[in-house]
Amino acid sequence: MTVTSGLRARVDGTRLLDTLDRLRQIGALPGGGLSRLAFGEADVRGRELVAGLMREAGMRVRVDPAANLIGGYPGRRPGLGALVLGSHLDTVPGGGAFDGAYGVLAAVEVVRTLNEHRIMLDHPVKVVAFSDEEGTAGARPMFGSRAVAGEVDPAELSTVARDGRTLGALVDAAGGHSSHIGQARWAAGSIAAYLELHVEQGPVLEAEGLRIGVVEGISGRCSVDVTVRGETNHGGTTPMELRKDALVAAARVVLAVSAMAGEQGLVRVATTGACAVRPGTWNVIPGEVRLTVDLRDVSAHALEAAVRRLRSEAAVIAAGSGTSIDVEPRQHVAPAPCDAERRRRIEEVARDLGLSHRTLPSGAGHDAQWMARLAPIGMIFVPSRGGVSHAAGEWTDAADLINGAEVLLGCVLAEGTRE
Amino acid sequence: MTVTSGLRARVDGTRLLDTLDRLRQIGALPGGGLSRLAFGEADVRGRELVAGLMREAGMRVRVDPAANLIGGYPGRRPGLGALVLGSHLDTVPGGGAFDGAYGVLAAVEVVRTLNEHRIMLDHPVKVVAFSDEEGTAGARPMFGSRAVAGEVDPAELSTVARDGRTLGALVDAAGGHSSHIGQARWAAGSIAAYLELHVEQGPVLEAEGLRIGVVEGISGRCSVDVTVRGETNHGGTTPMELRKDALVAAARVVLAVSAMAGEQGLVRVATTGACAVRPGTWNVIPGEVRLTVDLRDVSAHALEAAVRRLRSEAAVIAAGSGTSIDVEPRQHVAPAPCDAERRRRIEEVARDLGLSHRTLPSGAGHDAQWMARLAPIGMIFVPSRGGVSHAAGEWTDAADLINGAEVLLGCVLAEGTRE
Repeated sequence: MTVTSGLRARVDGTRLLDTLDRLRQIGALPGGGLSRLAFGEADVRGRELVAGLMREAGMRVRVDPAANLIGGYPGRRPGLGALVLGSHLDTVPGGGAFDGAYGVLAAVEVVRTLNEHRIMLDHPVKVVAFSDEEGTAGARPMFGSRAVAGEVDPAELSTVARDGRTLGALVDAAGGHSSHIGQARWAAGSIAAYLELHVEQGPVLEAEGLRIGVVEGISGRCSVDVTVRGETNHGGTTPMELRKDALVAAARVVLAVSAMAGEQGLVRVATTGACAVRPGTWNVIPGEVRLTVDLRDVSAHALEAAVRRLRSEAAVIAAGSGTSIDVEPRQHVAPAPCDAERRRRIEEVARDLGLSHRTLPSGAGHDAQWMARLAPIGMIFVPSRGGVSHAAGEWTDAADLINGAEVLLGCVLAEGTRE
Repeated sequence: MTVTSGLRARVDGTRLLDTLDRLRQIGALPGGGLSRLAFGEADVRGRELVAGLMREAGMRVRVDPAANLIGGYPGRRPGLGALVLGSHLDTVPGGGAFDGAYGVLAAVEVVRTLNEHRIMLDHPVKVVAFSDEEGTAGARPMFGSRAVAGEVDPAELSTVARDGRTLGALVDAAGGHSSHIGQARWAAGSIAAYLELHVEQGPVLEAEGLRIGVVEGISGRCSVDVTVRGETNHGGTTPMELRKDALVAAARVVLAVSAMAGEQGLVRVATTGACAVRPGTWNVIPGEVRLTVDLRDVSAHALEAAVRRLRSEAAVIAAGSGTSIDVEPRQHVAPAPCDAERRRRIEEVARDLGLSHRTLPSGAGHDAQWMARLAPIGMIFVPSRGGVSHAAGEWTDAADLINGAEVLLGCVLAEGTRE
């Protein structure tokens, strides 16, 4: 099938906004924001709504062993891997209406548009609402997409998740089949490509007045625990030159971490999010400080270099302050680069639609990073007002929501014209 | 009476160590250290032991309305103000054997020595074990000495102190008379001088191999609350240049506070003891950090200058980081200089006894600072091993304990020879 820009099918923007509006009522909190914690009552009702919308859009619906909700739309050529569109419906406590839900509902709208225009691609299309992306039920986020990628450890299922129930019990109650979790895994050849549309959750597009973000990759991250050990002592009686003040040394670490990132830095962003001081009393010199450091970049090399730099700077700070500083990488998530061809297509579609755009990394994690283990991925961002997410103040303007769905449709149609 | 050095009376060091040993059994903890929380069962038993020792030493014993335990030894000339020797018997939870107790028992030993040698000074001598020095019962420390100085607000007595009982009820149970707290106040002319012997609670004497500390004054302190407000945001999606990171700004404040003190600094010591971060999660940019800053110096001018400097440096840090920083002095305790004549006498006595010594400030607070409102004060320090106090590891060698008591006796005898 050949698609000519300008003449091609368009999504029904009003209908998309209406479905977003219906879904955001489910789990809405009195004071603003909403909570659809994975596998909870509101999440299950949200999934039911979306399952119905999938059927209205012409899809066959199933729930896999990991409780992923999957809608299938047929392709013309048997045996081709599916074009998969996805995101998630669950939220953090007090989260926003668009993080995840937008990507799923826009994908449903795209397929509904195909169906209404009686367009069938060579590839089958699947829309997936991945379960527990936010990790509010499981010990680790992105349970559903990890299951599809074969990256769930069955031991996770027996951890107590919520209300005294195990993660496995929650998965089963939501229609999954946790004892067969291995069957949720997709074979590598079963997917042609994965596309995900998402709100940026950052301030870049808004700050630059741009409509569409072409994601170059999902940042990897390295979480590092830094423990500074000095000597607890009386704050009144211990002269400055005899102190081993863990907080003064930790302050130097915080500044070193910050200086490691940014335009001229080793990595894109570096954050010290927590700082716990012992004993933490006004008149006592801190003897121990625990910091958590979060380093993110789309380059695995850059992350490794940053951890090395952190170690060497910590050693210098320790030597200068009479403290000892442990630098312990705790969790490492590899970066997931986006496919160059999909990036180029997203740019082309945006240009054809007259939408300004730029390439940018995704600082947050997404289901796409696990799908990248199986297939080439592409990610489309639309602006987040003030860069806010995971909060009641999360917002994206209606025009941007519709623009993003149009770009997704354009990319889906472009997949259909692939040689 | 004239006392000639070398021929004068000496304390009974073995007896002093024995009484210290008896007292440290009371409230001893299985794992080391001891707890005699003010007005608690162990504190009351300790007071009973010391009351008995006072009587054995030839003193008449009474308990004042603030539950201060007071032993009186008569003087030769009626109408002269008393020479007062004092400290406290209560401890912090898990404290050491000498902080406070040493000063009281050494004073009892000094009077016992006078009594055994049938020495009577012109002035009467009083030994006071001040109640709740550590502030574990009341809202503020040094309850007993504040009551003597007329600095207890009767409203303090109705605050719930411990076990659901008010401070007033605890004072009464320990033999006080809280409804007549005002009568605990001493008239200014009733005291000729106040002397306190105490462990240093700091590392200076030990580090310099000196035996006796001649306290130049008790540091005043200014406690300052510093609140840094930035912007909470996603640590993965917010570029460095768009951040308002409260912890990065707070780290600069911590370093500025530290740099404000020391040999070349504005004040003697400056400590940031607490650092509370919100939200304090590994992947979120801190939006708010609360620091507590403790500034100490024997000069009130220096303290004022340090607070001004902290304000101006905070303003520069705030402007450079997009944050706002509030600097709020919370509590101000004026410095209490020691009397020049008593300092000179302590030096003379130490020299006569062949004990090395130096002048140094007291960084910790002491009952002496309240007695300074009523009379000239003198303070004697002996070394603390490793500078440790308020902990099981608090220690002073036997020889140093005896040396300190000898110096106290010498100073008491010197008061008797005052022109």
